[in-house]
Amino acid sequence: MYEGIVQDLIDELGRLPGIGPKSAQRIAFHIVQTESFDVSRLAEILTEVRDKVRFCEICGNVAEQSTCAICRDPRRDPAVICVVEEAKDVVAIERTREFRGRYHVLGGAISPIDGIGPEELRIRQLMERLADGVVQEVIIATDPNLEGEATATYLSRMLTTIGIRITRLASGLPVGGDLEYADEVTLGRAFEGRRVVS
Amino acid sequence: MYEGIVQDLIDELGRLPGIGPKSAQRIAFHIVQTESFDVSRLAEILTEVRDKVRFCEICGNVAEQSTCAICRDPRRDPAVICVVEEAKDVVAIERTREFRGRYHVLGGAISPIDGIGPEELRIRQLMERLADGVVQEVIIATDPNLEGEATATYLSRMLTTIGIRITRLASGLPVGGDLEYADEVTLGRAFEGRRVVS
Repeated sequence: MYEGIVQDLIDELGRLPGIGPKSAQRIAFHIVQTESFDVSRLAEILTEVRDKVRFCEICGNVAEQSTCAICRDPRRDPAVICVVEEAKDVVAIERTREFRGRYHVLGGAISPIDGIGPEELRIRQLMERLADGVVQEVIIATDPNLEGEATATYLSRMLTTIGIRITRLASGLPVGGDLEYADEVTLGRAFEGRRVVS
Repeated sequence: MYEGIVQDLIDELGRLPGIGPKSAQRIAFHIVQTESFDVSRLAEILTEVRDKVRFCEICGNVAEQSTCAICRDPRRDPAVICVVEEAKDVVAIERTREFRGRYHVLGGAISPIDGIGPEELRIRQLMERLADGVVQEVIIATDPNLEGEATATYLSRMLTTIGIRITRLASGLPVGGDLEYADEVTLGRAFEGRRVVS
């Protein structure tokens, strides 16, 4: 529909999640027409992001060094690990200021339909972190949906064998929702009201 | 909330129209985590887009040469000019395949609140295009909102002095829509513009 490069930009933007053809078009025209929009800065950041961003060797969170800022922080309680699906869930929980322990990012949830079994998640790495006996509690904070619940059930069964305290975020989180979209208060309450699973 | 570059990317994406903080975050994580997403291609296109994209010297449409593909196309009727607010309106009209004339992109609409008067629009260039007497009809296709209507009124007054045919796109019920949900103004327009069926 457009000449060359503008259509290329629309196509490329359309590959991003949550951006349909109309949005892609609107964004492309904004970039083309708005003099003040710093195209080169966005281009630079995009290039840099792939080079710089790594995943924490300990917890799997997004990091710019071999470990993330939370795992390096000596003030964070090493005795409590909060297990989440994605790195963005870490940010959501950090925003509540309710949690002072460490994290473990699974990299997703068990979902047979998508071909994601326990082996595809960072569960082995979690078990390794629990081996030295420092960790006293594992808080399972997977999403309150089908996949998240399945993952929580799987994890709690595995962890019971080790004999540490296992808790699950309280419901209070809207069922069927996405942890990422929970507001701070709801998420904070969910932490407060967490229950012993076994 | 995030370490360095990821937050930079979220900030930069958040400057795009229609992208709120949540969307920016989701897109940023998609870019960071999805191996198959071609970051360098998007970065390249962004850089290229500013270098390559210009605006047609004749009609103001987006172009990669000094004139756009439509103005260069000898099969397009030079006697009819359709006046639109933005380049994306050209694409919308082209999609209908109803119009075989040329275009004139104003670059916006008259909006005193935003400090946009007739001088800020490409109206002078439109008058110049009409000077040689080739153009027989000007179709005013500004948006059917306050600013678009004001612009249409202004244009039609200016053009009446030249003595060429001036038309305005019909307002009415959207095809496939529901009469029940039409607003009063639209429904009023639909009555005004009713046609004899037989």
